[in-house]
Amino acid sequence: MNKRVIIIGAGFAGLDATHVLSNQEGVEVVLIDKNNYHTFTPLLYQVATCGLDPSSIAYPIRSIFRNKKNVQFLMGKVTEIDYRAKHIAVMTENGLRQEAYDYLMVATGSVIDHFGQESIEAQSFGLKDLDDAIALRQHILKLFEKATWTQDIEARDAMTTFAVVGGGPTGIETAGALYELYNYVLLQEYGDNQPPLKVRVLLLEASETLLAPYPSALQNAAIEQLGSLGVEVVLNAKVTEVTPDALYLADGRLIHTHTLIWSAGVKASPILSLLDVEPQRWGRVKPLETLQLPDREGVYLAGDLVYLEDDKGQPYPMVIQVAKQQGKVAAENILRELSNQPLKLFKYNDLGIMATIGRSRAVAWLFNRVQLRGYLAWLAWLFLHLVTLLGFKNRASVFVSWVWNYFTYDRSVRIILDDNRLRKPAPIEQLQEE
Amino acid sequence: MNKRVIIIGAGFAGLDATHVLSNQEGVEVVLIDKNNYHTFTPLLYQVATCGLDPSSIAYPIRSIFRNKKNVQFLMGKVTEIDYRAKHIAVMTENGLRQEAYDYLMVATGSVIDHFGQESIEAQSFGLKDLDDAIALRQHILKLFEKATWTQDIEARDAMTTFAVVGGGPTGIETAGALYELYNYVLLQEYGDNQPPLKVRVLLLEASETLLAPYPSALQNAAIEQLGSLGVEVVLNAKVTEVTPDALYLADGRLIHTHTLIWSAGVKASPILSLLDVEPQRWGRVKPLETLQLPDREGVYLAGDLVYLEDDKGQPYPMVIQVAKQQGKVAAENILRELSNQPLKLFKYNDLGIMATIGRSRAVAWLFNRVQLRGYLAWLAWLFLHLVTLLGFKNRASVFVSWVWNYFTYDRSVRIILDDNRLRKPAPIEQLQEE
Repeated sequence: MNKRVIIIGAGFAGLDATHVLSNQEGVEVVLIDKNNYHTFTPLLYQVATCGLDPSSIAYPIRSIFRNKKNVQFLMGKVTEIDYRAKHIAVMTENGLRQEAYDYLMVATGSVIDHFGQESIEAQSFGLKDLDDAIALRQHILKLFEKATWTQDIEARDAMTTFAVVGGGPTGIETAGALYELYNYVLLQEYGDNQPPLKVRVLLLEASETLLAPYPSALQNAAIEQLGSLGVEVVLNAKVTEVTPDALYLADGRLIHTHTLIWSAGVKASPILSLLDVEPQRWGRVKPLETLQLPDREGVYLAGDLVYLEDDKGQPYPMVIQVAKQQGKVAAENILRELSNQPLKLFKYNDLGIMATIGRSRAVAWLFNRVQLRGYLAWLAWLFLHLVTLLGFKNRASVFVSWVWNYFTYDRSVRIILDDNRLRKPAPIEQLQEE
Repeated sequence: MNKRVIIIGAGFAGLDATHVLSNQEGVEVVLIDKNNYHTFTPLLYQVATCGLDPSSIAYPIRSIFRNKKNVQFLMGKVTEIDYRAKHIAVMTENGLRQEAYDYLMVATGSVIDHFGQESIEAQSFGLKDLDDAIALRQHILKLFEKATWTQDIEARDAMTTFAVVGGGPTGIETAGALYELYNYVLLQEYGDNQPPLKVRVLLLEASETLLAPYPSALQNAAIEQLGSLGVEVVLNAKVTEVTPDALYLADGRLIHTHTLIWSAGVKASPILSLLDVEPQRWGRVKPLETLQLPDREGVYLAGDLVYLEDDKGQPYPMVIQVAKQQGKVAAENILRELSNQPLKLFKYNDLGIMATIGRSRAVAWLFNRVQLRGYLAWLAWLFLHLVTLLGFKNRASVFVSWVWNYFTYDRSVRIILDDNRLRKPAPIEQLQEE
């Protein structure tokens, strides 16, 4: 009798875990995700800024595991985990289903953390999933259509002022790409106004530096490259309140804008509350180093929602490489349990971090030793992402789009979908959402 | 003082008219559309069946006229035409705007005609614009996710039964592409069920033949090719009533299905009611042969909403070639009016018609003389559509997608977007929709 492994979440951790378990004898896998696709999250900002099609970074999960006979996919949202009876409840297109497991891997990652600030949660855009990216793209394009037909200069300037909050890689990449979208594309196409439309992209960071984990030379390089591109970096800027057309900083400054992109924080997926466990910092939960959850038989954790520390007592960052490596170790440990082998302990193999700022602008910090900046760092970033996409079929069209963009400075994915019409005809039974 | 030409509708007629007027001295053009993109409608069915990305067939209007200094684009919906005072009202992202014109070209095409059958209007999917195509794609993919986890065979079969109504090119292309999506892709990826998922694609036509304007040899070739592909063609089948999970034919037959795709009829855009003119058949309006609307000074019509007849008294079909040629003639006549030259009369130069049924399957009827079918017709169709796309930048990625699909039998654009999440955050001011 096969053991049934349920993996919740088809992000980087869940995908790598499923790969380890696929076509293995003695196990069958049910992979559950609320979407029918895996999202290549590092390029979400490219979708938001019209550089890539949504489908270029979203790959159908069923295609990935097409030839894996022991892998099933279930689209739905987990609403209950009964870890004593070892089954879960999932809200699907077919209504609520109950699914039993022998092993359960919870790998649902993280969500945006607004730090309890309600006006930010209500008024800001995020960049955590594909729907976020499309919503932001729609919003930006509509604002430009609006601004170009607006006479009042102050009102117009507010429409073309974009505030990105958070000096991590997502904030930096988004701010840079936004400015490039304006500079290389929109500036040419909304050129009728006198005086011409003026765009401001502000990168607001609450602390006194960008890219906290990087060496200070690279932090400064990032600030410099953002400045040379046209992005205004504002350090020590803490957002306290947001309205539809303005935001306020802690020091009383007021910025007129219709767009706040919040990339200042994430916290562990709320699914952990279904497990009755004590959360650590950022809502993350501490498993054993084997990634087993103590006192929850057969339950493993992997990815952003895991709280584990390195040798120096520092928590592992919520990044893709940690998630992938944890997904693999957790899946291997399930196989080891089944063959009565000793379990592996998770230890992060840190290859480095990088952030891109725009065309030919980036910083990279590799093997805790090598510092790259500018064109070389950008090439390294481009190469790494293309190689990483190699596992997916989409790389051909992603590559074509990129090459095209590079030579033409064009961004062709600039369609505003009709939010209203997308809703109808109503699906026969609506998937219940929280 | 420049004359101000307002063109309503950036379809094939409006686009060609704008091209004629762009960079011409003495005129300025305001092109109005409710979308910020032009839609290459002949390939909508490819978006609905996961073969192409929405942006591959939707090109930003501002990009098309980027270097045309006398062309402005306004995104919005025309709500009023005051042909005496010569101005219109447009609902935009900025609220209601009033725009004055010297010349007005109305080129808003056609909409789906449900022939007053309310249950069909409420329950059916259309394929008239990009939002339709995306809504249909979402629906199909969700049904497959649902069917594969459904035990009851009858209920399951209803989910994987697709009824396409209307034996014109759109109906034929959609039915063929749907069957290919199942046969080459979904069959492999939803393969866990015992017995396996079974798909039926029905093409229902109320009359006794498909492709009414074609010679009967080609009509029969189309029926034969659809049959060899796997599509069930049902002639003399008139749909009378639709429910969420069934449809009824006039002869009492009942078909269990959750998907009715309605491509059985179109009628002229309802904007014509703003002009206080008497509609002809299909709600179309008859202008002079110069495409001027009588008694409405400065108003021209072009495209699907025009009712004009050929030498034999037959109304011109509502097809792209007629629309493009009318757009050109109407625009040329505006220039001729300005330079006091005699106006041109519209006369349709009919190059032919073609419909594709699937990979290597098509029919073409060229120059009212040449009949092509099968592989050769399909190559002609492919060539024509690629050449037509040449005017747009997207052709590179469209071509890559097609070549890729041809060799891999893959359809990669299979992402289900979250209808609920696409709605938020709410736009600051919602564009008012009818």
